[in-house]
Amino acid sequence: MTSGPDERDFIQSIERGFAVLLAFDEERPSPNLAELAAATNLSRPAVRRILLTLQRLGYVRNEGTRWTLTPRVLSIGQHYSASHAMIEIAQPHLLELSAKTGESASLAELDGRDVVYVARVPVRRIMSINVSVGTRIPAFATSMGRVLLAWAPDAVVDEVVAAGLPALTRHTVTDAEEFRAGLRQVRSDGWSIVAEELEIGLLSVSAPVRDRTGEVVAALASSTSVGRSSVEELRGEVLPLLLDAAERISADLGHTGSARREGFY
Amino acid sequence: MTSGPDERDFIQSIERGFAVLLAFDEERPSPNLAELAAATNLSRPAVRRILLTLQRLGYVRNEGTRWTLTPRVLSIGQHYSASHAMIEIAQPHLLELSAKTGESASLAELDGRDVVYVARVPVRRIMSINVSVGTRIPAFATSMGRVLLAWAPDAVVDEVVAAGLPALTRHTVTDAEEFRAGLRQVRSDGWSIVAEELEIGLLSVSAPVRDRTGEVVAALASSTSVGRSSVEELRGEVLPLLLDAAERISADLGHTGSARREGFY
Repeated sequence: MTSGPDERDFIQSIERGFAVLLAFDEERPSPNLAELAAATNLSRPAVRRILLTLQRLGYVRNEGTRWTLTPRVLSIGQHYSASHAMIEIAQPHLLELSAKTGESASLAELDGRDVVYVARVPVRRIMSINVSVGTRIPAFATSMGRVLLAWAPDAVVDEVVAAGLPALTRHTVTDAEEFRAGLRQVRSDGWSIVAEELEIGLLSVSAPVRDRTGEVVAALASSTSVGRSSVEELRGEVLPLLLDAAERISADLGHTGSARREGFY
Repeated sequence: MTSGPDERDFIQSIERGFAVLLAFDEERPSPNLAELAAATNLSRPAVRRILLTLQRLGYVRNEGTRWTLTPRVLSIGQHYSASHAMIEIAQPHLLELSAKTGESASLAELDGRDVVYVARVPVRRIMSINVSVGTRIPAFATSMGRVLLAWAPDAVVDEVVAAGLPALTRHTVTDAEEFRAGLRQVRSDGWSIVAEELEIGLLSVSAPVRDRTGEVVAALASSTSVGRSSVEELRGEVLPLLLDAAERISADLGHTGSARREGFY
């Protein structure tokens, strides 16, 4: 947030522009100037100038003293999907996996200590939050995060552990050693099942997606709830389909490390 | 793009920050400094400072001289979904509609002369472009756009017509009078079917979603292809399901203009 003499290349206006955009959320869907100033720790005149700029760019609009985001904001994220071929390549495989399992299929990447959904075929709502592309959840307590962390550099895992492993439910693994051993197990198994560590009732199974260099670039997940399935069913029935789909996506990305199976397409 | 004395409130750095972010796309997934400078009409030193700023904010990263967007970019759009209750309210209805029809279900809003997908349950790919949330398509040649324009202020329709109605396919309505008459028909019918005007082979049917004030705030669509269905099937089988779903979403948004039917839930 500071802009010292050694940071002459940092443009504070850009940071502030994003801060104002990101201040719009579920709790503050249509804030006024004062609420945005309070949320961003910026002065009202500064927020006003930013809003007028964002308005002219088409990202916000106002009705009286209340401001809202416009759907143009969605275009920004769409440029991520458009510039990452993996998203498009994965889409038919997510659809096929979802059709075979009858459950939601998701693709996620690691961003700091979070996983971010980058593609998703929803079937029903199973989490307390409304998951859409762009949704962030803590990596440590999810099967997608465990997969991504299992193959991440040590420094990334160290950062996650250092930030703490809070008990999000009574099932969350909160012990650093147990957590690290779990990641080694994921690496050895080639998949992760996490049951009710992020939310009570939520079950998910994930597998790594690799690019042509063999690097794990995403996690593919199938998620369900305890009322509809069990860890045993995930392992016995969903896991083979998931591993197959992850392997197909990897093959489509140019990964040749494992034999490519004959496809349905 | 100018910043004259009467536009003292416009912050050019913010405009430039977005220009650089939006320069990443399908054609330029991992540009270098020179390519970004060419795409944005900014100087290399200006682009460099913006990239370093965006990098510190976590929105871009570099590998050597090549830059890419990070998944954090998706969070910006996610704030749109999170701050617009309609998206979450519509989600189960989109899932139900898609399950009943076996086809993709989409929700879109008008932004200028485009429609922007704000929610979507994909089933298969039917357009030449990969449609995801945030994707923009020209309003005039789509059923979603026709619905949104049918209830839009005259000035919006005038702007669309003034911008031209290019023949995207041999079926596209390109005559202004015919186009305006079509919108009046949509308003009278309460729905729109558009066949192969945006792309050969693409069929879609749309209906308006209204908020508590009765204003049309979105279009709900079911899309398919000529190989799988026909205009007659859309009208006879899909339309009743679509109108029902649009009415349910509107009712959930507080609209009481039409009798709420007994539900399946």
